[in-house]
This record gives sequence, structure tokens and C-alpha cells, in this order.
Amino acid sequence: MVNKDIVWHEASITKREYHEKNQHKSSIIWLTGLSGSGKSTIANAAARELFEQGYQVTVLDGDNVRHGLNKDLGFSDEDRKENIRRIGEVAKLFVEQGTIVITAFISPFKEDRGLVRQLVEEDEFHEVYVKCDLATCEERDPKGLYRKARNGEIPFFTGIDSPYEEPDTPELVLDTGAHNREECKNQLVQYVKDQTK
Amino acid sequence: MVNKDIVWHEASITKREYHEKNQHKSSIIWLTGLSGSGKSTIANAAARELFEQGYQVTVLDGDNVRHGLNKDLGFSDEDRKENIRRIGEVAKLFVEQGTIVITAFISPFKEDRGLVRQLVEEDEFHEVYVKCDLATCEERDPKGLYRKARNGEIPFFTGIDSPYEEPDTPELVLDTGAHNREECKNQLVQYVKDQTK
Repeated sequence: MVNKDIVWHEASITKREYHEKNQHKSSIIWLTGLSGSGKSTIANAAARELFEQGYQVTVLDGDNVRHGLNKDLGFSDEDRKENIRRIGEVAKLFVEQGTIVITAFISPFKEDRGLVRQLVEEDEFHEVYVKCDLATCEERDPKGLYRKARNGEIPFFTGIDSPYEEPDTPELVLDTGAHNREECKNQLVQYVKDQTK
Repeated sequence: MVNKDIVWHEASITKREYHEKNQHKSSIIWLTGLSGSGKSTIANAAARELFEQGYQVTVLDGDNVRHGLNKDLGFSDEDRKENIRRIGEVAKLFVEQGTIVITAFISPFKEDRGLVRQLVEEDEFHEVYVKCDLATCEERDPKGLYRKARNGEIPFFTGIDSPYEEPDTPELVLDTGAHNREECKNQLVQYVKDQTK
């Protein structure tokens, strides 16, 4: 028997309700920069600190996207575009569910980053330029990718034979060439806290 | 100056850590059934009840996926397959981040549902058959889709001119033909709570 006093409620849980539960807003923190600039390192360290402070946060990066959702995509211009589009749409789903999403992808093209910005509300997309000059990135070469690219083993590698378009007006710049990773992480954590109050 | 006592920690936040924070496990609750069987209605109502009880939960359905992530896909067999694959991969990302994901898609083909099952660990995928005979679904026709399909305005409509493959051994059956939506919702909520303890 159904209790007639029970009100049937099938409306989706709103973003606002998630925010109230989490006690903070959600948004996309979009890290962009050259391979080796430190995007994933800083994203994960910042996410961990925010998590430990009670924030609802996740990281999207090559590790969890390239071999899953986007495993059908290669590195042609068209596929790179689709790669970023899908990541943007997934990030939006997380934002709708109240999560702060820190993404860590080279995302070399302004146009693609601009498209992601348009997917969400105006204050929900934050472009963070993880800045580091090519020479430094290439010297770090944490995954040996620059070496391979220079040897011609990886075509269309950003910075070598494919362009990286710097953001014109990023919301935040983390200069990993000039500051150490701890400082950059702290800067990002503080920025996220300020923006999701 | 960097405090040398600070330990740098950039490891991803693990699923287990999310579970500990949320005090419940995460998994995919995969609702499958004909159009009009009540999938979205029950999914949203169950999610709302779980949310109000403190669960970390979200719903993926046509409303938030078809016009976003999967807007490039049509209704050919190939596109339907890709539609389900992407939803599975996104659901997995939510599971990794500690969220219970209730999905509401017709997902008519056994093979596609089986592929999603294989994306996650054995106890993380729960196939829920939202069962309702075609005549009843067609009589309800909440979106007028059956009428259009019968008029030939929607080709390859599941149940009309495209098959629906019933699950052989679903983890749960919600018989919306025999039970009202309140009972079905309660059954689903209880199931989810039992499975994510």
C-alpha cells in the first residue's frame, strides 16, 4: 500500500543542492601547458590537499581519459579537438554534480579551450596556464617524450612540430619555470578555494 | 621558502579514499528497459532519496548525455554502441571518484551492456531490468514517441522496428507493470544501500 502522504519527487538533484551539501561551489579548473610543464603533478597535489580539507574534487588527465573514454581518438587535429570536447562535456557533468574538476591536458589550441568555456556558466570555467618555457620542459622530459619527438618517433608533438597557443587572458598563471611545485600547488589551492566559496 | 618537512604528495586520490570519506562504496546501477518503462522516473526519484540520506549519487540519462557528450551520435547500430560505451566510461570515472551512478538508458543490446560490465570491477556493475510489457509502455507513451514510431516518423525505435534484448540474469528486476513507481523506487533505494555498504 502506498502512503498517500508521500510526495513523489523525481526532479533531478540540482547543482545548487549539491553545492549546499558540499558547502562549496563547483567548477572546471582547466590547466593548459606544454608537456612537462607540471600540469598533472600540480593538479593531483592540489586535488589531494583540497580533498583532505573536505572538498569534493577530482582530476581528469591522460591517465584516466586517454585509455578509457577517448581511447578511440588519435592525434590528428580533428581527434585532438574531439578529445578536448569530450573532456569538457565530462567535466561539465561533474560540475553539475557539485564536483570541482581539475583537468590536466596540454590542450594547445585556443579555440578548443574556448569551446569548453562556453559549455558552462561564466564563473564555472577557469583557465590556468601552467607556464614553462620549452627548453625547461624538454630538459625535464619526465616521460622521455621530447626525446622521441626529436627522433621523429612522435609526429605532431606540441612544441616541436605542432604549435602551442598560449592563453591570452588566463584566470591564473602558474609559472613552474620560476617557482617550485610546492609554491605553484599552494597558489592553485588558494585560487580554487577563493573561487568556489 | 619551502618547508622541508612538507611531504610532496601528488598521488591520485584513490577510490578507497573517496569511499572512506563518503562512508559508502560506489558503483554503476545500470537501468535498462523499453522507452516508457519508467527508467528515468525511478532513477531520479531513487537518486533524490539517496542524496537526502547523505549518499554521493548522480544520474546519467538522455537529458544530460544526449545533448552534450553524445550529441555527435545518431541511432545507427554503430552509434548506439558508441553511445553506451561512452556512458559506461563516464560512469566509471564517477565510480572512481566515489559516486554511485544510476544510469537510465534503453540500452537494448546485451553485448553493449556486457561491455560496460567489463569496464569496472565485478561488484561495481549492477544490471537493473526495468520491466514492463510493450503494450503498457506504448499506452503510457509519455513523450509521444511510440505514436511517432508507429507513424514511421522515428525509424529503428526499440520495441517497434528494433529489438530489445531482455537481460538474462539481471541483478535486480523492477516490474513497473505490476508494481507502482513508489514501490519500485523503494526497492531500488534498498538495493543500492545494501550493495554499497
